[in-house]
Amino acid sequence: MRYVYEMEMQVRDYECDLQGIVNNANYQHYIEHTRHQFLRHEGISFADLHARGIDAVVARLNMAFKTPLRSGDSFVSRLAVRKEGIKYVFTQDLFRLPDGKPVIRSTVDTVCLVNGRLDHCEELDRAFAKYFEP
Amino acid sequence: MRYVYEMEMQVRDYECDLQGIVNNANYQHYIEHTRHQFLRHEGISFADLHARGIDAVVARLNMAFKTPLRSGDSFVSRLAVRKEGIKYVFTQDLFRLPDGKPVIRSTVDTVCLVNGRLDHCEELDRAFAKYFEP
Amino acid sequence: MRYVYEMEMQVRDYECDLQGIVNNANYQHYIEHTRHQFLRHEGISFADLHARGIDAVVARLNMAFKTPLRSGDSFVSRLAVRKEGIKYVFTQDLFRLPDGKPVIRSTVDTVCLVNGRLDHCEELDRAFAKYFEP
Amino acid sequence: MRYVYEMEMQVRDYECDLQGIVNNANYQHYIEHTRHQFLRHEGISFADLHARGIDAVVARLNMAFKTPLRSGDSFVSRLAVRKEGIKYVFTQDLFRLPDGKPVIRSTVDTVCLVNGRLDHCEELDRAFAKYFEP
Repeated sequence: MRYVYEMEMQVRDYECDLQGIVNNANYQHYIEHTRHQFLRHEGISFADLHARGIDAVVARLNMAFKTPLRSGDSFVSRLAVRKEGIKYVFTQDLFRLPDGKPVIRSTVDTVCLVNGRLDHCEELDRAFAKYFEP
Repeated sequence: MRYVYEMEMQVRDYECDLQGIVNNANYQHYIEHTRHQFLRHEGISFADLHARGIDAVVARLNMAFKTPLRSGDSFVSRLAVRKEGIKYVFTQDLFRLPDGKPVIRSTVDTVCLVNGRLDHCEELDRAFAKYFEP
Repeated sequence: MRYVYEMEMQVRDYECDLQGIVNNANYQHYIEHTRHQFLRHEGISFADLHARGIDAVVARLNMAFKTPLRSGDSFVSRLAVRKEGIKYVFTQDLFRLPDGKPVIRSTVDTVCLVNGRLDHCEELDRAFAKYFEP
Repeated sequence: MRYVYEMEMQVRDYECDLQGIVNNANYQHYIEHTRHQFLRHEGISFADLHARGIDAVVARLNMAFKTPLRSGDSFVSRLAVRKEGIKYVFTQDLFRLPDGKPVIRSTVDTVCLVNGRLDHCEELDRAFAKYFEP
């Protein structure tokens, strides 16, 4: 597995909860935003896909929480993608900056609904093909 | 002014931030949810309005923060509505339970966009008419 | 496995995203809120634990998304708990109402940090003991 | 009035609601994040203030919504600050990029609670002094 996309982000204080650390649900926001920026980097808009009847949805999510992020922390969000049958499987890991400590490690299985029905999405297949291992 | 709708809610821990109190943006969520439940009580679905090209949007918001809510707090959300020209003006106040202490006092001006254009919305006019003062 | 706690909730419109369905991160909010309400039902406050130096944190999360919730939907959130070594493992499933269709199925591994160190938490052990299978 | 701080941001898709536009409460998040980044730019950490018993809290908020942001939009968040008695009054406006169209215009009155009591905060006074008009 090799990461094919990455972006840096910074914790926003409203993302922290009463424990003073980033609330877990926000890691899901971070990795969703990373996938959508990855799509955008490939010339594909998630909102535009939806408007054309193509909905990429998450079928399964697996997250391991390693080191909590806190107010003021920056981090890098890295992404790899492979195809398994009809699914796109994303490996999405966050690392704290500058020390590179793992924050979360996750796997996200997504599928496409085309006009409400599970289907292959040629547009995504074409965009991602160069990233699939031979 | 008299309140015409009210509902009880309870703080959810993820709504609290690192200060240990409900993050301000969540009060906006609470009062939005109250308006939508009020609509629903009148037989109107916000999502259904949107699907038919009618978007109720907030034009102006004024909130005074009185007493912060904390983990475990319950509160009642009260709403009044009046019409001013093309605007529906909601008075929306939250009170902590059981002591009734004011949490926020707010005024929310909303307007309707019908197919993207500012317009009267007969459906809302009819639903709310009984609540407008003579 | 048998569920030992359940609560009903309703989708709030602000929880839906541009696909018109509840954004995935909100399911994590729903199940966190359910765990905290379960604690409260056992006489334990999450905020109070934190104030006393005991932080229950999620170590691993596994969610399978079955049927998306939409504006207006109600659902029941059910919880089971077992102990595995130092971890509390929660099974947390959501079912749409009134048809009972599965919304998500999830497993949440949590651990306790006592003054920042991984440890057993006697208070939770005592509270949950009656729910652990012999 | 002159703006003394600005930062660029981009809409994240999860911030959009079922109307396909950024949910109003997120504008409150954007301007809170801008204030906290402004503090940080002045060498002050909001979380650190809290840890030392100083809580900057919003007393009043006034927002006018001009043009909704959508998926893919970037915007600049600008801030001005003045002192009025015990309050810091922030003017916070968002402008869409690249066309500069006003998104929201807002005024945020904040006060400081020092160990729970309304008080002047010398640290903020010193940091902001250079921005107050003579």
